[in-house]
Amino acid sequence: MSLNAPHNDTYAKGKALSEQVNPGMEDALRARYDALVPGMARTVVDVAYGQFYARGTVDEKTRLLATVAALTALGGQTRPQLKVNIASARAVGASREEICEIIFQMALYGGLPSMINALNGALEVFEAEDAE
Amino acid sequence: MSLNAPHNDTYAKGKALSEQVNPGMEDALRARYDALVPGMARTVVDVAYGQFYARGTVDEKTRLLATVAALTALGGQTRPQLKVNIASARAVGASREEICEIIFQMALYGGLPSMINALNGALEVFEAEDAE
Amino acid sequence: MSLNAPHNDTYAKGKALSEQVNPGMEDALRARYDALVPGMARTVVDVAYGQFYARGTVDEKTRLLATVAALTALGGQTRPQLKVNIASARAVGASREEICEIIFQMALYGGLPSMINALNGALEVFEAEDAE
Amino acid sequence: MSLNAPHNDTYAKGKALSEQVNPGMEDALRARYDALVPGMARTVVDVAYGQFYARGTVDEKTRLLATVAALTALGGQTRPQLKVNIASARAVGASREEICEIIFQMALYGGLPSMINALNGALEVFEAEDAE
Amino acid sequence: MSLNAPHNDTYAKGKALSEQVNPGMEDALRARYDALVPGMARTVVDVAYGQFYARGTVDEKTRLLATVAALTALGGQTRPQLKVNIASARAVGASREEICEIIFQMALYGGLPSMINALNGALEVFEAEDAE
Amino acid sequence: MSLNAPHNDTYAKGKALSEQVNPGMEDALRARYDALVPGMARTVVDVAYGQFYARGTVDEKTRLLATVAALTALGGQTRPQLKVNIASARAVGASREEICEIIFQMALYGGLPSMINALNGALEVFEAEDAE
Repeated sequence: MSLNAPHNDTYAKGKALSEQVNPGMEDALRARYDALVPGMARTVVDVAYGQFYARGTVDEKTRLLATVAALTALGGQTRPQLKVNIASARAVGASREEICEIIFQMALYGGLPSMINALNGALEVFEAEDAE
Repeated sequence: MSLNAPHNDTYAKGKALSEQVNPGMEDALRARYDALVPGMARTVVDVAYGQFYARGTVDEKTRLLATVAALTALGGQTRPQLKVNIASARAVGASREEICEIIFQMALYGGLPSMINALNGALEVFEAEDAE
Repeated sequence: MSLNAPHNDTYAKGKALSEQVNPGMEDALRARYDALVPGMARTVVDVAYGQFYARGTVDEKTRLLATVAALTALGGQTRPQLKVNIASARAVGASREEICEIIFQMALYGGLPSMINALNGALEVFEAEDAE
Repeated sequence: MSLNAPHNDTYAKGKALSEQVNPGMEDALRARYDALVPGMARTVVDVAYGQFYARGTVDEKTRLLATVAALTALGGQTRPQLKVNIASARAVGASREEICEIIFQMALYGGLPSMINALNGALEVFEAEDAE
Repeated sequence: MSLNAPHNDTYAKGKALSEQVNPGMEDALRARYDALVPGMARTVVDVAYGQFYARGTVDEKTRLLATVAALTALGGQTRPQLKVNIASARAVGASREEICEIIFQMALYGGLPSMINALNGALEVFEAEDAE
Repeated sequence: MSLNAPHNDTYAKGKALSEQVNPGMEDALRARYDALVPGMARTVVDVAYGQFYARGTVDEKTRLLATVAALTALGGQTRPQLKVNIASARAVGASREEICEIIFQMALYGGLPSMINALNGALEVFEAEDAE
């Protein structure tokens, strides 16, 4: 295998995945941030989705539950991104109960406040689902 | 279902699980800490294993990968516990590559240093496996 | 002393203490979270109050000031829980000045922003007291 | 040089600097916090501005960009203070693009959520500038 | 009361307190750091001890237990400073059991790893006491 | 300008910069990590150096001082990476005094322990320089 094999067209792979789990994300980022940080939207798609989430070896549902775990443990400061990733986890098949179990477990590592704040974020995502 | 159903005998459930993924843990904790914090070892088994990991709904491998993710993102300060949980993840069937993929992904949330420090912790666990 | 002595009836001890410093908490948690995380409310009462705060050796006022210190240092992300614990500290006899002194001191460990954000949380609690 | 040379009149030096980059700050802090924490406003001016920012060796623009970097990496919990420091950086000559580049770079250390949350804080500061 | 009353001679007050709880600290800091950061040692004594710990309203034992709580919750990265503050807490009358109870409680806010790492730091301090 | 302009050949730009400030880094990362995380070394060069540090608008010295600030504030857990970035800052012209001033300032945001731990890391870098 070439040293660069995992890097063939990482933007294209990232774009396909980001549109699946989070449709319209790159356009939204570009409209809001690219005037001040040129290329920011493309970097997020290329890097986060292309060079990390699209690597394989671990399925997307497990990857997104791992991200929910980490953002919960990092604390309430990441609430907007936690909610995006909870919605992405739902989009690839995670149940509400599975998501909440992983959040609950994080009380052991991020502390009780991080767990409660993250459950509140999850409830907001689920309420938005129910309102659709 | 009784309100207390998930709490029937949480210590016994926790003890069974902790002995499976981390044999001898309660005895080691008791020998080291219980003189200064009476009951500490039992609380860890009852709470961490009985009232969190043994709850079901999510399988142990996914739970442990989520913990590896969180401890990575929280940073190098949790190295000893990260290594314990990597070993536990191995004990319930996670491959080295899966563990390292989850750690690598955490560069997006905990930053590059947390990812590199956690990979170093994983390498130490794998070297210990190879030395057995 | 039996190894399990500190664990006799931790739920009952925790329930008594949580109702003293934070009346109605278990019911509120159960109504909001137990559908998605069965048993969550009971675990919080059993663990946080029964297996930690009710242990003795250190009085509740000192324990709650220590918690106020930690939540301040951990940063503004724990604002809701900081306010709950400030109210609990008030319920067991801490003065407003004592609480604010401990928060102020945390500038040395959590940084100036964490101190200012926590003082703002304390002011909200005190304003609520004055409005009663 | 006397051991105390850097400490001659640190309050006066801090007062001059704080009024330059953040006019009215001490009075605002005193009105809000000094009843509960006597002397808090003076300590902030003396310490933060007099004993740190006014030390020389590094120019104020670089110092403030460093602070923007740190507050970004520490996460969204410091949003109010991040905005104050972005405004201060603007007051000593940093361009919007420079500030946003430093924030963007912090994705590598504080993670993607901290970067996006800080860019949102910067946008709020710039919108307030435009509204003047 | 003058606005500056709490600031009369903060260095002298801080020096007296720091020599009581941590003898020789200023000299040690000066020898190690002042060549690169002129005045650093004096700032630490003036600020940390004079403008925070020596303020009164809360006794030193409670202040130091609060600091032990915060440093525990902030995680293993502060081990050297945690140990210094545990020793200071001992110097003003805190028992080993009280210190360990406060550390144990922090599992609820800083997570299990932070609690275990801090207990290990406390054990090192106590072993050093026993070796004297 | 094309939307992709900042992304032309980010790997090549990153490689040139990483070899300047941190010679041999990609090879060292590949030798250590690529067996478990294929492509990891290339991603670090492409992303960290090509898609962030090589963007322009802010000079490398300021970028590296900002990184030193952030890693200091994030705490002692990032010591190895802090030292790498201090050495990189030296390589692009930052003086020892400038680096230590920025670290010292971080006491205001990351707390006293993070400042002292980072100064110790800087001293280790400077000692290694003197030993060459």
